Amino acid sequence: MTLKKDLISIKHLCKADVEHILKRAESLEDVARGERSLDLLSGYILATLFYEPSTRTRLSFETAMKRLGGTTIDLGSIDISSVSKGETLADTIRVVEGYADCIVLRHPKEGAAAMAAEFTSKPLINAGDGAAHHPTQTLLDLYTMKRESKLEGVKIALAGDLKYGRTVHSLVFALSMFNAKISFVSPPQLAMPDGIKNDLTAMGIEFEETEYIEDVIDDIDVLYMTRIQKERFADINEYNKVAGAYRIEAKYLTGVRDNFIIMHPLPRINEIDPDVDDTPYAKYFEQSFYGVPVRMALLLTLLGK
Amino acid sequence: MTLKKDLISIKHLCKADVEHILKRAESLEDVARGERSLDLLSGYILATLFYEPSTRTRLSFETAMKRLGGTTIDLGSIDISSVSKGETLADTIRVVEGYADCIVLRHPKEGAAAMAAEFTSKPLINAGDGAAHHPTQTLLDLYTMKRESKLEGVKIALAGDLKYGRTVHSLVFALSMFNAKISFVSPPQLAMPDGIKNDLTAMGIEFEETEYIEDVIDDIDVLYMTRIQKERFADINEYNKVAGAYRIEAKYLTGVRDNFIIMHPLPRINEIDPDVDDTPYAKYFEQSFYGVPVRMALLLTLLGK
Amino acid sequence: MTLKKDLISIKHLCKADVEHILKRAESLEDVARGERSLDLLSGYILATLFYEPSTRTRLSFETAMKRLGGTTIDLGSIDISSVSKGETLADTIRVVEGYADCIVLRHPKEGAAAMAAEFTSKPLINAGDGAAHHPTQTLLDLYTMKRESKLEGVKIALAGDLKYGRTVHSLVFALSMFNAKISFVSPPQLAMPDGIKNDLTAMGIEFEETEYIEDVIDDIDVLYMTRIQKERFADINEYNKVAGAYRIEAKYLTGVRDNFIIMHPLPRINEIDPDVDDTPYAKYFEQSFYGVPVRMALLLTLLGK
Repeated sequence: MTLKKDLISIKHLCKADVEHILKRAESLEDVARGERSLDLLSGYILATLFYEPSTRTRLSFETAMKRLGGTTIDLGSIDISSVSKGETLADTIRVVEGYADCIVLRHPKEGAAAMAAEFTSKPLINAGDGAAHHPTQTLLDLYTMKRESKLEGVKIALAGDLKYGRTVHSLVFALSMFNAKISFVSPPQLAMPDGIKNDLTAMGIEFEETEYIEDVIDDIDVLYMTRIQKERFADINEYNKVAGAYRIEAKYLTGVRDNFIIMHPLPRINEIDPDVDDTPYAKYFEQSFYGVPVRMALLLTLLGK
Repeated sequence: MTLKKDLISIKHLCKADVEHILKRAESLEDVARGERSLDLLSGYILATLFYEPSTRTRLSFETAMKRLGGTTIDLGSIDISSVSKGETLADTIRVVEGYADCIVLRHPKEGAAAMAAEFTSKPLINAGDGAAHHPTQTLLDLYTMKRESKLEGVKIALAGDLKYGRTVHSLVFALSMFNAKISFVSPPQLAMPDGIKNDLTAMGIEFEETEYIEDVIDDIDVLYMTRIQKERFADINEYNKVAGAYRIEAKYLTGVRDNFIIMHPLPRINEIDPDVDDTPYAKYFEQSFYGVPVRMALLLTLLGK
Repeated sequence: MTLKKDLISIKHLCKADVEHILKRAESLEDVARGERSLDLLSGYILATLFYEPSTRTRLSFETAMKRLGGTTIDLGSIDISSVSKGETLADTIRVVEGYADCIVLRHPKEGAAAMAAEFTSKPLINAGDGAAHHPTQTLLDLYTMKRESKLEGVKIALAGDLKYGRTVHSLVFALSMFNAKISFVSPPQLAMPDGIKNDLTAMGIEFEETEYIEDVIDDIDVLYMTRIQKERFADINEYNKVAGAYRIEAKYLTGVRDNFIIMHPLPRINEIDPDVDDTPYAKYFEQSFYGVPVRMALLLTLLGK
């Protein structure tokens, strides 16, 4: 097991680590649903430090902790904390580690989590550091594929904003462990960066690129949609054209595979029409829920339980 | 029992439901006061979603849950949640139901709670949807009358803003179940809407209207005061005149009945002089506390305990 | 024991009270670290009311409560509470006491805590009222000296802003109980107020005043640094000069006593160079942690456990 004190990046995990966490998550799913009680973290405190808001990630960690009998403390929104008095992140971490057994950190700056982890002897989990990493999102994405479609050898299309999307960059690395066949579907101005494509080629991972979802939709197990942010476009007309093209509706799903599923890290805005929600392919709300058992498994592992 | 999955409006409850909840609340009062331990909701999670602030309602639900051994998670203030990224309420509800066993929702839009309840299989409690409903406030109001004065056949005066006050509209409906005799006391511009008065007449419920509290104060069991909001008046002088007339002082309470009580949903501003607080008639702080046992009873009922 | 229902000011405690709390805190340190479980406050609820933000104080109380098996409810930031509707503090307290077994209050107005305590039968702890008192900070400061250096007869220098610093005023009073020898080190414009110096003289407590830390550093057990706030100075050049002079670096610490320690109420800005953190003298993060066992001891005492 290469997973030691902290989880900063999915790149620090080997395939055995990932498989261990996913397997443990599966055994905890009934606890996550509240169908079985488990008090393994009774007496333990998780501190959540969100230097930028991420409601669902925070709530998901809180629920994971509480379903295991633990409790949480929250730093609160940054403008009302001592951060506004000019305290460094290093100092805040050294204070908070006196109040908790484990720390979850979301921070807008790339590298913040790795730096923070050096200042505490308690386990620290990166819940997103700028455009860099968000490893628990990647783990729950993998878990969703395993539970709802397939993971090993999965044929997956990543669609939407592949240039700026932190989620898809981490996911691509993780998929490479599982011999995935990847299609990148994006408008040219939001294409997957060359650096990541070069890495894939070096690792011998197959991938293809296209501009249209319809080119791939009938031949994949998983369609992973992402949000295209208006602020990426200088011209609103350009945005509207792209946003329209990267919107899934139920009528496009007539020829898909049996185990086909649609995933989305949420929140969605216009990328998926609500008429898709009632199809058997819509798994984005399950995906969101799967954050709970996956984070439970991770907390137990990092806390040595 | 007509109470099934959700509590959206007091109008969805029959008298037997209300009586069941009030009776159960009474048996839980010592638990609510922290005098007796009860762990019936150990392992259960309540999610509180307040799209507009209501500190006392939120805290009261939190305490109800915690006194029963349960825990809570809170969406936080809306401007820092994913709501600001444009997520629909329906999506937020479907995400949150993955983290909790029961959802409490306060929302500024009428009908929000009923809509939200359709998107989740978990019990949803309406903690106020715009000008429409706030059923747990009504239940604790009824409980206060039962405990501190009388409920069946109560003679009650509702005083202040009867036009815009959500609290009194729901309460009037509920009182109709208990053969109350109701006096509406308000300035003409804030009178009880005709629609509600017509409903009462159709149900055969006695009511009278007057402009002055002194007309009724010696002949009632309960005086239910409400806040008159400055922003309802175009002219500040008009407001000042009305606010002065709808202010209770201790000296007005010399001829009241033995079981007379004063209630107020709080916060009060100027409607009740602090010199009333020391009289035996002041029951508004007890009323606030009674939100705890009533919400405990409701949570246990909805969670099938 | 003079400590009864509330803790408003350190001045209300006698030496035996302080010693009792410090001794009890010591016996709880392993619980505070999460090394031993203790459920003495299971079922108890602590309400935290922070009318101005103080993240570390709030988190420290939350952890103290949760390490003892209790839970907390938080009023939240004031602008989103019913405070913004104009409710008085007295009313808020009377509402909140219905939801909790103990109340922690931070308020910008001097005297707020004493006033609030009169309106509730539940124990109330002052977590800072304007420039006046912050007794739990004082208790954890004393505890830190006892654990890391010495308390009875301690030679201590208080350095920085001694004029406006609430922390040091309360601390000076408490130190007088323990026969401390005190040096006040500050720029003239931020000197300890005459009133406090007169009190010390009346009590027969030795103190000296100087402008330079180097005058005292080799002859003290404890250097207590405080933050010098830019907003105290009309002229930024004046501030920069003072801020530079009241900054500790590791190179100044070559001739200090064996049991010498540096304390700081945190957050620090520039008063202590990060190169001090790695010396054996830096005890400010331990000091921050010691807030947990001290507050645990206080909560248990006030709740009669």
